Amino acid sequence: MKPVFVSDLAGDTTVTTFFLVLEKEIRSTREGKPYLRLELGDKTGAIEARMWDQFEAAAREIGRDDFVKVQARVDVYRTKLQLAIQQIRKAKPEEIELADFLVHTKEDVEKLYASLVANAESIRNPWLQKLAKAIVTDPSIAPRYKRAPAAKVMHHAYLGGLLEHVISLCGLAKRAAEHYPELNLDLLLTAAILHDVGKLDELCYERAISYTVEGQLLGHIVMETETVSRAMDAIAGFPPALKTVVLHLLISHHGQYEFGSPKLPMIREALVFHFLDDLDSKLAAVRTALAAESGEEEWSAFSGALQRRFLKLDRFLERANTAAEKAKQG
Amino acid sequence: MKPVFVSDLAGDTTVTTFFLVLEKEIRSTREGKPYLRLELGDKTGAIEARMWDQFEAAAREIGRDDFVKVQARVDVYRTKLQLAIQQIRKAKPEEIELADFLVHTKEDVEKLYASLVANAESIRNPWLQKLAKAIVTDPSIAPRYKRAPAAKVMHHAYLGGLLEHVISLCGLAKRAAEHYPELNLDLLLTAAILHDVGKLDELCYERAISYTVEGQLLGHIVMETETVSRAMDAIAGFPPALKTVVLHLLISHHGQYEFGSPKLPMIREALVFHFLDDLDSKLAAVRTALAAESGEEEWSAFSGALQRRFLKLDRFLERANTAAEKAKQG
Amino acid sequence: MKPVFVSDLAGDTTVTTFFLVLEKEIRSTREGKPYLRLELGDKTGAIEARMWDQFEAAAREIGRDDFVKVQARVDVYRTKLQLAIQQIRKAKPEEIELADFLVHTKEDVEKLYASLVANAESIRNPWLQKLAKAIVTDPSIAPRYKRAPAAKVMHHAYLGGLLEHVISLCGLAKRAAEHYPELNLDLLLTAAILHDVGKLDELCYERAISYTVEGQLLGHIVMETETVSRAMDAIAGFPPALKTVVLHLLISHHGQYEFGSPKLPMIREALVFHFLDDLDSKLAAVRTALAAESGEEEWSAFSGALQRRFLKLDRFLERANTAAEKAKQG
Amino acid sequence: MKPVFVSDLAGDTTVTTFFLVLEKEIRSTREGKPYLRLELGDKTGAIEARMWDQFEAAAREIGRDDFVKVQARVDVYRTKLQLAIQQIRKAKPEEIELADFLVHTKEDVEKLYASLVANAESIRNPWLQKLAKAIVTDPSIAPRYKRAPAAKVMHHAYLGGLLEHVISLCGLAKRAAEHYPELNLDLLLTAAILHDVGKLDELCYERAISYTVEGQLLGHIVMETETVSRAMDAIAGFPPALKTVVLHLLISHHGQYEFGSPKLPMIREALVFHFLDDLDSKLAAVRTALAAESGEEEWSAFSGALQRRFLKLDRFLERANTAAEKAKQG
Amino acid sequence: MKPVFVSDLAGDTTVTTFFLVLEKEIRSTREGKPYLRLELGDKTGAIEARMWDQFEAAAREIGRDDFVKVQARVDVYRTKLQLAIQQIRKAKPEEIELADFLVHTKEDVEKLYASLVANAESIRNPWLQKLAKAIVTDPSIAPRYKRAPAAKVMHHAYLGGLLEHVISLCGLAKRAAEHYPELNLDLLLTAAILHDVGKLDELCYERAISYTVEGQLLGHIVMETETVSRAMDAIAGFPPALKTVVLHLLISHHGQYEFGSPKLPMIREALVFHFLDDLDSKLAAVRTALAAESGEEEWSAFSGALQRRFLKLDRFLERANTAAEKAKQG
Amino acid sequence: MKPVFVSDLAGDTTVTTFFLVLEKEIRSTREGKPYLRLELGDKTGAIEARMWDQFEAAAREIGRDDFVKVQARVDVYRTKLQLAIQQIRKAKPEEIELADFLVHTKEDVEKLYASLVANAESIRNPWLQKLAKAIVTDPSIAPRYKRAPAAKVMHHAYLGGLLEHVISLCGLAKRAAEHYPELNLDLLLTAAILHDVGKLDELCYERAISYTVEGQLLGHIVMETETVSRAMDAIAGFPPALKTVVLHLLISHHGQYEFGSPKLPMIREALVFHFLDDLDSKLAAVRTALAAESGEEEWSAFSGALQRRFLKLDRFLERANTAAEKAKQG
Repeated sequence: MKPVFVSDLAGDTTVTTFFLVLEKEIRSTREGKPYLRLELGDKTGAIEARMWDQFEAAAREIGRDDFVKVQARVDVYRTKLQLAIQQIRKAKPEEIELADFLVHTKEDVEKLYASLVANAESIRNPWLQKLAKAIVTDPSIAPRYKRAPAAKVMHHAYLGGLLEHVISLCGLAKRAAEHYPELNLDLLLTAAILHDVGKLDELCYERAISYTVEGQLLGHIVMETETVSRAMDAIAGFPPALKTVVLHLLISHHGQYEFGSPKLPMIREALVFHFLDDLDSKLAAVRTALAAESGEEEWSAFSGALQRRFLKLDRFLERANTAAEKAKQG
Repeated sequence: MKPVFVSDLAGDTTVTTFFLVLEKEIRSTREGKPYLRLELGDKTGAIEARMWDQFEAAAREIGRDDFVKVQARVDVYRTKLQLAIQQIRKAKPEEIELADFLVHTKEDVEKLYASLVANAESIRNPWLQKLAKAIVTDPSIAPRYKRAPAAKVMHHAYLGGLLEHVISLCGLAKRAAEHYPELNLDLLLTAAILHDVGKLDELCYERAISYTVEGQLLGHIVMETETVSRAMDAIAGFPPALKTVVLHLLISHHGQYEFGSPKLPMIREALVFHFLDDLDSKLAAVRTALAAESGEEEWSAFSGALQRRFLKLDRFLERANTAAEKAKQG
Repeated sequence: MKPVFVSDLAGDTTVTTFFLVLEKEIRSTREGKPYLRLELGDKTGAIEARMWDQFEAAAREIGRDDFVKVQARVDVYRTKLQLAIQQIRKAKPEEIELADFLVHTKEDVEKLYASLVANAESIRNPWLQKLAKAIVTDPSIAPRYKRAPAAKVMHHAYLGGLLEHVISLCGLAKRAAEHYPELNLDLLLTAAILHDVGKLDELCYERAISYTVEGQLLGHIVMETETVSRAMDAIAGFPPALKTVVLHLLISHHGQYEFGSPKLPMIREALVFHFLDDLDSKLAAVRTALAAESGEEEWSAFSGALQRRFLKLDRFLERANTAAEKAKQG
Repeated sequence: MKPVFVSDLAGDTTVTTFFLVLEKEIRSTREGKPYLRLELGDKTGAIEARMWDQFEAAAREIGRDDFVKVQARVDVYRTKLQLAIQQIRKAKPEEIELADFLVHTKEDVEKLYASLVANAESIRNPWLQKLAKAIVTDPSIAPRYKRAPAAKVMHHAYLGGLLEHVISLCGLAKRAAEHYPELNLDLLLTAAILHDVGKLDELCYERAISYTVEGQLLGHIVMETETVSRAMDAIAGFPPALKTVVLHLLISHHGQYEFGSPKLPMIREALVFHFLDDLDSKLAAVRTALAAESGEEEWSAFSGALQRRFLKLDRFLERANTAAEKAKQG
Repeated sequence: MKPVFVSDLAGDTTVTTFFLVLEKEIRSTREGKPYLRLELGDKTGAIEARMWDQFEAAAREIGRDDFVKVQARVDVYRTKLQLAIQQIRKAKPEEIELADFLVHTKEDVEKLYASLVANAESIRNPWLQKLAKAIVTDPSIAPRYKRAPAAKVMHHAYLGGLLEHVISLCGLAKRAAEHYPELNLDLLLTAAILHDVGKLDELCYERAISYTVEGQLLGHIVMETETVSRAMDAIAGFPPALKTVVLHLLISHHGQYEFGSPKLPMIREALVFHFLDDLDSKLAAVRTALAAESGEEEWSAFSGALQRRFLKLDRFLERANTAAEKAKQG
Repeated sequence: MKPVFVSDLAGDTTVTTFFLVLEKEIRSTREGKPYLRLELGDKTGAIEARMWDQFEAAAREIGRDDFVKVQARVDVYRTKLQLAIQQIRKAKPEEIELADFLVHTKEDVEKLYASLVANAESIRNPWLQKLAKAIVTDPSIAPRYKRAPAAKVMHHAYLGGLLEHVISLCGLAKRAAEHYPELNLDLLLTAAILHDVGKLDELCYERAISYTVEGQLLGHIVMETETVSRAMDAIAGFPPALKTVVLHLLISHHGQYEFGSPKLPMIREALVFHFLDDLDSKLAAVRTALAAESGEEEWSAFSGALQRRFLKLDRFLERANTAAEKAKQG
């Protein structure tokens, strides 16, 4: 673990520690004096940093997404801290623990992954089972499946978040299929396991969560269409009609055109899966909003994903109760 | 059971049977000759009828929503049948079995109702339990709760349909609460049991399903707000804050303003309940579309509720398979 | 009247006066030193305040919406003033004049209220008259009706604003009914008097205008439906059909679903009332925009309610005229 | 008055009368036999007509919008009548009374026109008064202003309807200005008098109400901009800034882009005028819906302009009352 | 060429000819008598046919999309013809000329195809050239590329229509790139040649133009993504970044989410190509509307694709001119 | 050229130079001390300035849009510079070169203008040619046509930008008409030359680009309708139908109601012209976004006009290539 985190910094001190470079640019003061401006960060936050002198070599050597070792003075500027860099160099791989830089799921990733494989194996249709297993055990996919977040900001936005979301969906799918016997559980499980595989490449989450250029130009729906299509082609005898069905499940899972689905769900299970996915994602967003500090006693933080605040139900009921008690006693 | 149903009629015959008057008007031919035009129906369909002579007394006595006994000739006009009424009079109550005129759920209504009560009793919060039980066992509500359809056309549009929908939602709520332990099952069950109580008065379903004037002017959300609010006031000591929460669950359950919810869900359980209600309703609409005769081998009838057709999945996979087999053999 | 208002404060002085606590939180400097941060205000504005030492007792005792007596140094920080609190305690009720903390209508509230009662009495339909009078003279309603603002920010956002808006609407309703003899004036007056009664509880305006939790979860339309419904039930023999009509007027008065009306106006007077209410509210918003300082010679301040600026008509015509005169003379 | 109207026709008779040609085409039977198909009409309705033999000369001579004298057999085809033309020729001007072919306002047009002029004269701003008078007394405008309908179908869709609508708006404007003293009545009256002048040319209403090609390509807002602009230019010394204001009132009076206003109202009176115009038009549409035969006891005909039905208020209250009385007595 | 086309049929005759089965069902008269109902067609139109007796064998043997030989009586029913089938059997392949059943482009398909290849060869970037050539010369693609329509109804809805549209786009792309030197012509040509390749499989156009099940579930954008992606993978060394660019051009070419593009154009050439494609398609729709018989002298038929009519410009100017001439002379 | 530009300023110096007054107001410090606050600018940017003492005379004499001569100290406040004015007076006309204050097209304006006239002369229809020439050579129009920007911020937002845009459109129109022989080039050229003439008055661009009051109230579409209409009326014998066509081209060129077109394109050339105008404007916006400094290696600056970033194509391909090379070598 690194010696000092962003959240530990205190004004008017000097620190030596490691950061990730989030942004880098050369700016000039109005007077024309150039300086190096960096945004540095770790899993606890981000801070602005400036280097005023002899920064040329550093500016050449260091780029965005590099890990750096920094010696700097921490200036307090009113309510904000800022680093004045004295020395900076690229960190050596052995100096860095990635876990210091990105938030992780609190679940045990290996258990989640085992559950993912078990879910794939529980699929009874042999073609779909082969497909799901091929994807989740593909050595070029599995390690990234364990790491990937489910989104950049909307929900499950942390390492392992995708896996957490998918396992939750598999459980939800089973409950839905028990409740509605008309549903084909195999299709729901297949959809759950494959529907966000494109996020492995849409997002970049080595050091911070962001979109890849490919992700921005194509999006995870199109990207996973290719991955999954290829996996189906690699299974000798995979029925073409079933392939069409699987692809339809993937491309329709956002449920509406304006959310990037080029087709609306036209298969019963595709419609149901869209609902389950939407529910699990939105509920995760509510969870995040309620967990965040809101500064309001009875309302959560504002949820950007859902464009509203949520009531802190227990707090509200309890306060109302207390007020009523007092009124009675008073 | 009545002797002849609409679906039994054959051209160039004469029948004597009972019908419900769906529409009634006096029209004139272009030549100015007046005649009585009726739309008559039963649970199997509707048929146009005309009475050309001596219809004045009948026209006075008989109105929309009356049951009538009719003797008529069945004319074939190209592909449509039409009745030429010879005699008509109001039916006596004892001549009519209501079940001949409206489609019923295929479930056992009493069992469904017992399940409703059991669900109400399973609520652990004493206030909510009292409320739910008070509503479902209210003698002015219970008999109508057993009969009411869930909608006029969108989903569960038959007698007992509301009960079917609510029981399904209770089951779904339990599964959701098992899956997401953070959810308050009591609130979900309360919402399921109460959310469509306003439909008891919004719809008229004595003889055919239609909207009451009150239903059109107020809508079931506003109507049930009053019913449930009154029931809460009748429970001594019902906590006011909890009342607000219950009312919010009701008024937000359509999830969006344009579907008539004056507030968006701002409580976690309100959001989840909206999803469950929407899923159960939409899935019922898919079921209806797939069950209807569509004239297409691989596509369901067009669903007005969902504005699309759905794939007949098994048929599609099977046909594709057969075609592939043939291709291989050929 | 309190000794010093926010708008009177000058830098580098020390003051002792009363404020309302708008926000309260404990924050820490980056260095981890905790301090008390308050937002204090009165009817002339708001100011940030910090207490750096021995604030623990104050922090326990004082909460949002409390009135406080404060002794503080006024620091000038560049263009903003800020209070450094030296002493703070809760104010005693007798030390406070509420009028120092909220903007009032400039009209005479008692006269407005007398006009409200007179309008209620002018209703000729006996049921509607009884209803309107019962509401406006209800001792639990009348005092709040005199105080309530019509909205938090959109229009008439000051104490007594609701009354002003309603009296204006009554006058407008009479003119509309004179102009269109087909209109039922009784219904228009009833709508005017009752349509915003829910705002008495939707908004909290004891010390500052904000939404109550109940108001956010239910909204004034649903809330007044309950109030007015109960008042109708309390009038023996109130015709149920007329009750439906009154409730429809209330729930449809926003005119469109996306503004929170669960039903569109389906009665002629409901449609007309929606227009009158919308006109009176929007015109008040224009008035506010034109009265505010805009920094532009020919354009009003930007109206958030209407999403545009309005022309200062007289100024524009006059300037154009002067310019033309000059051009002629030059 | 012509001898026989469409509404007088009876089957299996022969008639000789005058009609307006609404549509004309040469069609062929499937067997390739050509025939002349006409749609003929008068103010009471329209009827299809066919001429099977020796129609060539007629087809050459006669066109859409011509008045014709016809001798024909009236065939009854089930519930529809149809003419089999035996002889047809263009009518002579002296044979036709235009009043037989288009619905007129029931008001006295000359009185309405006198009121229009009086309203123009009541404008106190000398420039606006000159402008309004110049327009309404322009000999190329006045006769058409007396005849024009206010719309093709939406509201006041009959000869003289525009004048009726404008006079109503002038009255409404005066009431609004009395109620809101801040309003400039001169601007409101000017807007009322000029805002639909473009409809004189947008619509064609010599023989039936339809759009001119120019009307479809430009619309009345753009068309009247030119007419009024030219009239202002013809008044020596008309202040340019006031011209801008007048034009803004015209182009913004539909209130929203999607209704063809290229600018939103940005002057207080422009906003108010938009509301008044919208109210008067919509109320006229409600009036039409309530007056039309709907086939429903408690609901009006469906209003295409407003996309809903309206409650027949008196009928509903009365029926509910009667039902209640009965229930009490029973 | 077949002996008789739909457009040749005349009433009260008997014909023997070939048709395509467009629809097939067994229906019953109200009296319960079953009959075989077919919709038969060729490139000149469609006609309803019924077989009343001994149709069982035919009903078993014959299906939708089959070609049949029919002997039937042509009944005239009012203005519609209808076939009463006497004998029917499947046609033998050698009896059928496909050209009798679908409308073709009027261009020379081989010349268009040669131009397509030439356009592909004109691409200077070696990877894109290889890709475009691989696609257009792929033996499983080329013959279908020559046949495919560009759409079912919106534009270029006839055999060879896709090729026509693509060649037009290539020409337009060259002109755009000459005009805006900043544009990369290679990308525009690549987009033009590949952007609708998915339509080869989205549409079925062997016998009539319709959507395949795969086409409805996936859409041409997703389908061509797979085809083109595979083609790029088959070219050794194809740069992955360029692959991303090509795929982005394909998936963004509808320009907006609601038209099924899962991504908006984010590359300059993607934006420009979207405009060119939209222009060429819309202009083709205008062309179709203007060519169709509209029954109006100055207005085209209503264009469903563009939701409006278009002015017949020359006719309008000429008629206006003639009218003016007359007015002058008169 | 003026001695010092905004971009030349350096902290802690004293300057004497010329600026344009962009904003002016009298403000007070919290302590009630008034001061003069100006926003000053030239073509290289803007800077805030304050005058603390003896500013009364200056405040009276100087207004927005005046050129001033200023002597001031340049203060550095953190990263922003600010002027403390010591002396200020209105500049004399002869001291100012307008070119110092607004960005110009880099093209030769006289050449562009000659091309404009040549394009007008190339129109073959004599009426349209006369019209176009009359407009572009009108001495009250031509000088402003040479100066006007095409928009305030969306595209071609610099002096001469309108001319650049129009010339580009003329070229594009010719290419489109060559490609689609059905198009009437005369109409396209007329539209190109006239479609933004209203911008000459909608925008004010003497010293900075902003909207005139008239421009905000009427918009360029309505304004040019009047200008062009008048020009057509001034040409003896101009065919009225052609006038309607020209006006339709102008008012429909934004293509959609919400962009301020009161009519949708209903003439083929109007539709095509809308596409060409939209393409040229959007491509200019892309050009601007790509030229601006974005701080991102592979993405352009965010385009407010298009609400997205664009890929820096060459950079992306090259970087990807380099990365691939390295990977291969590594």
